[in-house]
Amino acid sequence: MEENIIYVPIALAVLGLLFMLVKMSWVKKQSAGSERMQSISKSIKEGALAFLSAEYRLLVIFAIIASGLLFLVSTLVESTSWMIVPAFIVGAIFSALAGNIGMRIATEANARTAEAAKTSLPQALKVSFGGGTVMGLGVAGLAVLGLSLIFLFFLGQFMGNDGSFYDNMTVVLEALAGFSLGAESIALFARVGGGIYTKAADVGADLVGKVEAGIPEDDPRNPATIADNVGDNVGDVAGMGADLFGSYVATVLAAMVLGNYVIRDIAVANGGAFTDAFNNMGPILLPLVIAGVGVLASIIGTFLVSIKNNDAKESKVQAALDRGNWAAIIITLIASYFLIEWMLPETMAMKFFGEGVKEVAAINVFWSACIGLAVGALISMVTAYYTSLGKKPVMDIVENSSTGAATNIIAGLSVGMYSTFASVILFAAAIYGSYELAGFYGVALAASAMMATTAMQLAIDAFGPIADNAGGVAEMSELEPHVRERTDILDSVGNTTAAVGKGFAIASAALTALALFAAYVTFTGIDGINIFRADVLAMLFVGGMIPVVFSAMAMKSVGKAAMEMVQEVRRQFREIPGIMEGTGTPEYAKCVDISTKAALKEMILPGLLTIITPIVIGLLFGAEPLGGYMAGVCVSGVMWAIFQNNAGGAWDNAKKSFEAGVMINGEMTYKGSDAHKAAVTGDTVGDPFKDTSGPSMNILIKLTCLVGLVIAPILGGHGADHDTDGATTEEMVFIDEDGNKTILTDKQVEQVEKADRTEISKEVMVTMNTEGDVTTAEVTIETTKNGETTIEKKTFTGTEEEVMEQIEELKDTEVKVEGGAKVIKKVKVEENKG
Amino acid sequence: MEENIIYVPIALAVLGLLFMLVKMSWVKKQSAGSERMQSISKSIKEGALAFLSAEYRLLVIFAIIASGLLFLVSTLVESTSWMIVPAFIVGAIFSALAGNIGMRIATEANARTAEAAKTSLPQALKVSFGGGTVMGLGVAGLAVLGLSLIFLFFLGQFMGNDGSFYDNMTVVLEALAGFSLGAESIALFARVGGGIYTKAADVGADLVGKVEAGIPEDDPRNPATIADNVGDNVGDVAGMGADLFGSYVATVLAAMVLGNYVIRDIAVANGGAFTDAFNNMGPILLPLVIAGVGVLASIIGTFLVSIKNNDAKESKVQAALDRGNWAAIIITLIASYFLIEWMLPETMAMKFFGEGVKEVAAINVFWSACIGLAVGALISMVTAYYTSLGKKPVMDIVENSSTGAATNIIAGLSVGMYSTFASVILFAAAIYGSYELAGFYGVALAASAMMATTAMQLAIDAFGPIADNAGGVAEMSELEPHVRERTDILDSVGNTTAAVGKGFAIASAALTALALFAAYVTFTGIDGINIFRADVLAMLFVGGMIPVVFSAMAMKSVGKAAMEMVQEVRRQFREIPGIMEGTGTPEYAKCVDISTKAALKEMILPGLLTIITPIVIGLLFGAEPLGGYMAGVCVSGVMWAIFQNNAGGAWDNAKKSFEAGVMINGEMTYKGSDAHKAAVTGDTVGDPFKDTSGPSMNILIKLTCLVGLVIAPILGGHGADHDTDGATTEEMVFIDEDGNKTILTDKQVEQVEKADRTEISKEVMVTMNTEGDVTTAEVTIETTKNGETTIEKKTFTGTEEEVMEQIEELKDTEVKVEGGAKVIKKVKVEENKG
Repeated sequence: MEENIIYVPIALAVLGLLFMLVKMSWVKKQSAGSERMQSISKSIKEGALAFLSAEYRLLVIFAIIASGLLFLVSTLVESTSWMIVPAFIVGAIFSALAGNIGMRIATEANARTAEAAKTSLPQALKVSFGGGTVMGLGVAGLAVLGLSLIFLFFLGQFMGNDGSFYDNMTVVLEALAGFSLGAESIALFARVGGGIYTKAADVGADLVGKVEAGIPEDDPRNPATIADNVGDNVGDVAGMGADLFGSYVATVLAAMVLGNYVIRDIAVANGGAFTDAFNNMGPILLPLVIAGVGVLASIIGTFLVSIKNNDAKESKVQAALDRGNWAAIIITLIASYFLIEWMLPETMAMKFFGEGVKEVAAINVFWSACIGLAVGALISMVTAYYTSLGKKPVMDIVENSSTGAATNIIAGLSVGMYSTFASVILFAAAIYGSYELAGFYGVALAASAMMATTAMQLAIDAFGPIADNAGGVAEMSELEPHVRERTDILDSVGNTTAAVGKGFAIASAALTALALFAAYVTFTGIDGINIFRADVLAMLFVGGMIPVVFSAMAMKSVGKAAMEMVQEVRRQFREIPGIMEGTGTPEYAKCVDISTKAALKEMILPGLLTIITPIVIGLLFGAEPLGGYMAGVCVSGVMWAIFQNNAGGAWDNAKKSFEAGVMINGEMTYKGSDAHKAAVTGDTVGDPFKDTSGPSMNILIKLTCLVGLVIAPILGGHGADHDTDGATTEEMVFIDEDGNKTILTDKQVEQVEKADRTEISKEVMVTMNTEGDVTTAEVTIETTKNGETTIEKKTFTGTEEEVMEQIEELKDTEVKVEGGAKVIKKVKVEENKG
Repeated sequence: MEENIIYVPIALAVLGLLFMLVKMSWVKKQSAGSERMQSISKSIKEGALAFLSAEYRLLVIFAIIASGLLFLVSTLVESTSWMIVPAFIVGAIFSALAGNIGMRIATEANARTAEAAKTSLPQALKVSFGGGTVMGLGVAGLAVLGLSLIFLFFLGQFMGNDGSFYDNMTVVLEALAGFSLGAESIALFARVGGGIYTKAADVGADLVGKVEAGIPEDDPRNPATIADNVGDNVGDVAGMGADLFGSYVATVLAAMVLGNYVIRDIAVANGGAFTDAFNNMGPILLPLVIAGVGVLASIIGTFLVSIKNNDAKESKVQAALDRGNWAAIIITLIASYFLIEWMLPETMAMKFFGEGVKEVAAINVFWSACIGLAVGALISMVTAYYTSLGKKPVMDIVENSSTGAATNIIAGLSVGMYSTFASVILFAAAIYGSYELAGFYGVALAASAMMATTAMQLAIDAFGPIADNAGGVAEMSELEPHVRERTDILDSVGNTTAAVGKGFAIASAALTALALFAAYVTFTGIDGINIFRADVLAMLFVGGMIPVVFSAMAMKSVGKAAMEMVQEVRRQFREIPGIMEGTGTPEYAKCVDISTKAALKEMILPGLLTIITPIVIGLLFGAEPLGGYMAGVCVSGVMWAIFQNNAGGAWDNAKKSFEAGVMINGEMTYKGSDAHKAAVTGDTVGDPFKDTSGPSMNILIKLTCLVGLVIAPILGGHGADHDTDGATTEEMVFIDEDGNKTILTDKQVEQVEKADRTEISKEVMVTMNTEGDVTTAEVTIETTKNGETTIEKKTFTGTEEEVMEQIEELKDTEVKVEGGAKVIKKVKVEENKG
């Protein structure tokens, strides 16, 4: 069993994908409703597929150029195999595939959810959540399968090489980083492109349709309505799928890389090879196995998501989702406990930067995972507090809407900014706590624990846009109002889960980025990243600026495309006769076209900015300034992600508050009031915040660190070749007569060295003074023996020659070496090969 | 002359203050116009004074508590004198005084400017710029005078102490830091309080008056109009005065502290005391003398600010201001060249972190100053580009206004975010360049050069609000339209200079913060700030969050107070009969009261957050994590300052664009159009950005670093007591027969040590194998002599006892020590005392 454990995640991933296929065929078997509904659904699907294929065509060009560069890197650097290139390509393809599966099922499920809503709410939930499940399992299954298979393949390729276990494994993991890089690059473009697409359509449709023409959302008379619904799919579904696929892979990869360092540290401390039953790589395989178990736990969780009562309200639906989510989390956590106990050595010698080697118990790793989950849950709660209906922050925005759009905007911005406080404190506590427990491996495992139930998280996240779309189909097909009411309940729950999911996503992304950052430092063999160096400090500032400018680009792109959309919709309202009466048909395709072109054009620059900047900085300034840059991107990126996501979420729900009516200064205020109009303005500003630039921050910070990690070998050698604090392969070991080895702590080493070696140094200091023929030399002799210094003073007088001679003689005096050698051996670590 | 140079800045400061008095009496001699004008001017003055005295009463409490804490610090730490407390108090009083002078002259000058505008534009410029000059010279004169006098006093107090020159000077400068801390603390409260006051009144007045009731700005029917004009004075004038006073003092102080390190480094390298004609403290006095010269240059510059033509437009006025400004800058720069040549040693040995000692030519310091000025000017140009009428960014916002407030806001936010790009790149280049040239002393001098002409900068900055107020007085007194037109020209120029001034201010504040940061690291004696430590990294994130939350507090306070104001104004419009017809009198005092209370209440929390957080972090986590926190505050603070200032400035001018009419999509669009209304919304959002939270960022980052510097002695000892890379007082010096000393570079030291000392170590490694009675021992003897290792292998066979004996014997073998001592001396630096 133990030595074949790599097949466990593979089997679980395959199981997840099989379950996905079953769910998929079940969803497809449901009735898609009337011909009109099917035709609308088809338009949406075609629009979305058209966009995706246009996007992929563009990304193929990017992938070819990036592959060429990667190949160049692999030829320049010994420790990088050319196989990083196919890994990169497979990662890119898998990422696109993950988005594609989600997008296809979502566009199938929308009409079917609307149709199911005709009969009952439970059935509508079943269909929409079924769609979400397909997507969740597709993403998680592909991620675990892809990582495991490629890892297995590379093991076979490289572990038989000449180098040590550590060196060979480094080559394996570096090639595997290509898979993650491919996934994350595609995710960036998909997120940004999809985000621009959806928000351009949404903002455009809302501004003219809702605000100017006063027609409801998703009204078929609105020319931008199809584009809007396509946008939900390419942005919220395909974009998010690629995003979480990338996060998931990066998190597991970072944990694996740090697992390799753990193995090396233990080996060094043991004075020999690290061995365990898992082909001597338990710490590396652990995150992969936990991820596999997370897929299984998510499948179990999905069975708990159902409601019985047709009159259920949001809270019941939310409770059903929470039930499934917590079940998956708790199962994963329990399993993790046993996996950690089983797969890790009871105690591990870990190097802590600047603190030497510490013995870390395996159970500490479990506690790190718990910290990760606890902090993830708390950050989600903070997010929920700042963005939920009826809570103080949202009510603040609502109240401020009564004095106009300006105060609404000021209030929304300040809510977003405020929300960074608790989130960042929690996040800092997570870094601090998980590091104290189990070093950067602990940080990585905290992130892995957060991400383990990605399948379930994503199922919950993805059902929202499906329900949203179902509402759109219902509206456009002019179904009875109760259908829309039911889908609205699901949509509203979906908004909350989306906001909470974003809190979780940013927390895990930031921890992942830190784990990658740690891997980077160890990889380049630099001695930490010191911001007291002017170049590092300068790059810290440059890094801090990138997320801001990236967000600016995304915002501006949305603004530009939305304006085009507004003008097109206005034109159609003006020029197409009978459009408002429902007798003229709007030209939907023109709006789809505007969004498509804008998204493709505008996603390129921010994408390249993200990828090229770290490369330029690394090559120009070296490894340490690049580290400063990475830290700057992370710090600033986390702030802007939280700020934008939460401000956007709060604005959205402030607007929604008016739908049921809300009390402002003692007066009930409803939809259509001036305050509501102000709230709509706020929501429109929040749209690109929460759906374009905000969620891109996650990818930005991870991708920055991944690019750093991949180019690290160019900037410096590998840890193994450098004798730095983090990467020594020589350690003091005490070997007793029976050949038993004991690792010495740093302090013991010091004592031993003092006792063992006899170190003598003699320093002769002379001040000479020549007057006439007489030279006087005052000589001080400092003899240091084992750190203790004795000083002797002598004065020589005579001719210069005489004095010099005496001094020379003095220097040649013999010193007796004393001291007792202990049975101490300095060992070069014998690492097992293969 | 040389030894009395300290009296030069004192004399120049006194000259500046005298010139200020002359100008002040000239302004006061001008006619204040009709009785109505005088009465309005008086109301504004009274409102402003009432606010200031309420503010000061509150700040007295703060000052007492802070003094107590400082006293506690001074008793705990040897190197901190209790005299830091009076220095703190004097700093606080001077800061308040600087704000007060400005505020008084501004409220005198407003009606007089309006009156002067009746006759001609040149005269109106003369009066308003005269008022600005009074303020500028008041601030700069007080700053230079206060710093010089206190420094002189402390020299007398402490330089006769027992310690070395460096240690005594450290005590002097640390006590002087109290002056800066006092000034900066008051500045923070004044800026935040004033900012909340002015924007609550402004937003409130605009939203109801301009937008809802459709009456012009400053209309006497608007109940908030007096509060609005008071706000201009307490926020834009008194707040800015205190702010720049604090900046100026902090910049000079930071340069003086780093000058002390320069002296120490030179002394160490010389192997003895540093001596020069300037009482051995040229590098410390230089920044003070440059500041004094800057006052003189500013006086000269003010004579160039005048126009002749009564029909002049904005560009002519701008040109006049530019002429004066550039004259002051160029005079200062030329003087700096000669001062640097005169006051600094031709070359200086400076320690560069991680790079050892480098010889730096004095001229490099001049080039650093040039870099500071060039980058400051370039950042101002970038700021001007992003915020000026007619330029692309503002036109973008204008165009986006045509599709409503939401797209206007999106465009404005993205302009602000975009503007960080060029600014941060320039700023990073300034850090990098000035550091490469002359270390952190170079960085500090770059900041000093930027700030040297503060008097002129402030005169240009302050004339804007005076002209703005003059317009208000003209409007309220119902003067002829051409008066308002003339003051509007001045006001419009004032808006541009204000935006440019903010660019300059943030650049200099950031450089000052870095210089303080450098002083902090050296002060605490830590070995740099390594972000690869989890606690440092966690605090980097916490630091990054503080400016965001600080801004949120400021924004929210403005929003809250503005809402109250809106409701009060609406109430008055509703309840006071005849108010709109001009027959009823609005209750101005109620609005003044709302702003006053809000400002006082809301300034406390952000102020305390800024001051207390670094203390808590320092005490809980220690010096290095506090350094991480400081870096986080700086990086994030710079981004948010640029973002908020520029977004606010751009929105303001986008709104202004409509006043003259602007072409959108081929149509001329004017005031009153929907697009203009959208632009007003944007401007309202931008108001707290550019006048409350944005400018507070400067103070936030400087104050954070100052607090760190003051508590540094609690966290660690002083540099002198620590043997760290940045702060060693022992150095290798070569002394030849004539007693000449030569500093050795790090490389030479290494060579010398290798040649000089004979180091022998012997390591005996044994593997024993006992079979039956026979023990075989394989022994390896490694002998290392001066780094070269020879290995000898022996095998002993026999009983265990025999073998052990042989091994013991082996260990006692004598080793001959060889080697030749050079005439090298390790000197403890003899520092001159007093």
